[in-house]
Amino acid sequence: MPRTMSPSVVGQALERLRAQPPLVQCLTNIVVAQWTANVLLAVGAAPAMVDNPHEAADFARVTGGVLVNLGTPYDETAEAMRGAVSSAADAGTPWVLDPVAAGGLVWRTELALELLSLGRPAIIRGNASEVLALAGGAGGKGVDSVDSPEAAADIARSLARERGTVVAVSGPVDHITDGDRLVRVGNGHRWLTRVTGVGCALGALMAGFAAVVEDPLVAAAAATAVLTVAADVAAPGSRGPGGFAVALLDELSLLTPTVLVGRVTLS
Amino acid sequence: MPRTMSPSVVGQALERLRAQPPLVQCLTNIVVAQWTANVLLAVGAAPAMVDNPHEAADFARVTGGVLVNLGTPYDETAEAMRGAVSSAADAGTPWVLDPVAAGGLVWRTELALELLSLGRPAIIRGNASEVLALAGGAGGKGVDSVDSPEAAADIARSLARERGTVVAVSGPVDHITDGDRLVRVGNGHRWLTRVTGVGCALGALMAGFAAVVEDPLVAAAAATAVLTVAADVAAPGSRGPGGFAVALLDELSLLTPTVLVGRVTLS
Amino acid sequence: MPRTMSPSVVGQALERLRAQPPLVQCLTNIVVAQWTANVLLAVGAAPAMVDNPHEAADFARVTGGVLVNLGTPYDETAEAMRGAVSSAADAGTPWVLDPVAAGGLVWRTELALELLSLGRPAIIRGNASEVLALAGGAGGKGVDSVDSPEAAADIARSLARERGTVVAVSGPVDHITDGDRLVRVGNGHRWLTRVTGVGCALGALMAGFAAVVEDPLVAAAAATAVLTVAADVAAPGSRGPGGFAVALLDELSLLTPTVLVGRVTLS
Repeated sequence: MPRTMSPSVVGQALERLRAQPPLVQCLTNIVVAQWTANVLLAVGAAPAMVDNPHEAADFARVTGGVLVNLGTPYDETAEAMRGAVSSAADAGTPWVLDPVAAGGLVWRTELALELLSLGRPAIIRGNASEVLALAGGAGGKGVDSVDSPEAAADIARSLARERGTVVAVSGPVDHITDGDRLVRVGNGHRWLTRVTGVGCALGALMAGFAAVVEDPLVAAAAATAVLTVAADVAAPGSRGPGGFAVALLDELSLLTPTVLVGRVTLS
Repeated sequence: MPRTMSPSVVGQALERLRAQPPLVQCLTNIVVAQWTANVLLAVGAAPAMVDNPHEAADFARVTGGVLVNLGTPYDETAEAMRGAVSSAADAGTPWVLDPVAAGGLVWRTELALELLSLGRPAIIRGNASEVLALAGGAGGKGVDSVDSPEAAADIARSLARERGTVVAVSGPVDHITDGDRLVRVGNGHRWLTRVTGVGCALGALMAGFAAVVEDPLVAAAAATAVLTVAADVAAPGSRGPGGFAVALLDELSLLTPTVLVGRVTLS
Repeated sequence: MPRTMSPSVVGQALERLRAQPPLVQCLTNIVVAQWTANVLLAVGAAPAMVDNPHEAADFARVTGGVLVNLGTPYDETAEAMRGAVSSAADAGTPWVLDPVAAGGLVWRTELALELLSLGRPAIIRGNASEVLALAGGAGGKGVDSVDSPEAAADIARSLARERGTVVAVSGPVDHITDGDRLVRVGNGHRWLTRVTGVGCALGALMAGFAAVVEDPLVAAAAATAVLTVAADVAAPGSRGPGGFAVALLDELSLLTPTVLVGRVTLS
């Protein structure tokens, strides 16, 4: 399994995103909607939270990318997700599935599997437990991962091959695979787990990068690199998770492709 | 078309709001609800997010002002909006319509027009695309305006006259008109477009000022002046959009009528 | 009525929470969901916003504590609340009721009373108006309290005895009683009322402490002490409510049991 991606590839992806800011449709949860929009705006993308059944499907045809996040699904937003995924699949719009707490909760796990049956996502992003759940493995309790990303790498590869998609497993080291190639991103800071919605915003960033680069593996790696390198820059001057979240937005907006290429740790 | 409003008028409006803090009912979206409440609290108003169909109509009779924002409408909140608008119209409560992404999305455009048929708002606030959409013009794609505010000034005047309301068009320069008078507010900073919900919070502020001053044109101008002057004060010490948003809340709470009058640029 | 609780008791509660981070299920409102999750994460607890009717009841059996907050109830989330409360009562999971704006709004007042009929909460948390409303007294207008906490202390005691629960009334001085014992917490800062959701987050913290300490009176007092002492530490270095909210998260994460014990004012 080849493990190489040149840092310059993620640098070019960021250049591309800044040059042609993508419109990112987010069907996400009530906890992180504001944070997700602010992360997208800080990086340079344009968020559009269109998540009702009357509009979601049509919008998925014209947007650059779509995020479907299962953090707080309701009947109405679940219906919007079905429509958005079907339209995205039909129109060729890349979409990202973030199956929050899959495995630990029955209804959303079934919803995640139903969405996967409606269309093939460009990227599935989750922690190890969630990925395990979609691959048929034992899921976690609640939203925190109980299994190590390393242990899940094999499952991620299996899921990626089974679904014909890229699978990104978040953790101290992020593992991203299309079933063939594997990229590991080693940046990041422990405070990323003390701010709600960082993983959710990462899924939205992946949808944004998937709108501007051809290869979903590059999109997932670029999004992960941008977020975690910005975290590396933001953390030292911060006193705690509150100030860190604010600084993270600042550094996401200030991050240059040059700094990204210089600081990202890919393996 | 007269273009004059004395800065002292907006200063007096801020004094009035601080002296008798208005209760502002917000039927708004899941992305900006927290931010909107914090902006209202920072300025000195009292937010009340009553947006379900069981309570919204009754509450619209007793609140000082009502904001109806179409950022993420659902069937249930749309029904609440219909009730709130009808009650507000009946009780004489001033209400503000923010038709987010009207023109670009069919269902909410129809909803916006339906709400306008149920009662006359004190103020319609949007970007140029959204205002164009309600005036029957060609709408924009997504939530970002594609047309210049200047180009929309004539449409705004038409819409204001057609609906007997004040129309406020946000942009680098904000245009506010009742179809007869025109006020332009020249303050603001580019970071205002990199923080989600600034426009949405502006609509809420307008509802707050409409609760304490008689003339909706003054209410819209005062809200715009307060937000953009606070932005002018907050921006120089900020490193990016994250810190800017935090500083904006601080400066909204610290802003005095004297500073407002001294820094606002009306034309 | 005894009025003593040793500061060391709340210090031990914080040690306990840090040693075994509780999972806190939050059925809360769209305004404060993010803030509530960030407050829980900062202190060291794990938030899980499971608030749909398909999953809420099952999850209430396995989570450490449950928060039910009536800030923006909808038909679907109200149904989830009924299920979560019934399950929590059945499974012995401690749950906290925050009856936001009860008394001022009819439907949610009835919902609060219905939830109380489904199960006995560990703690009811509110301002004086809300507590008065549940005790059958005259309620307030909107979400701001119109009655002094002192005046409500007798009502709180009555409600606590009537319902067999702990009642916590927020105000400049917080009053917490189980109908027999009374604890007053004297810490806090006026900016706590200028940041939306501080009271809501306090309810979530109470659910977290109720998951790790036996006595709900201690849980309510510890949560109140932690939040208000962190506010005391955060306020002096802040310029306004924006910076204060950020610093509050930082100080919640940095707060040690020793500092808590040293600064808390119990009477």
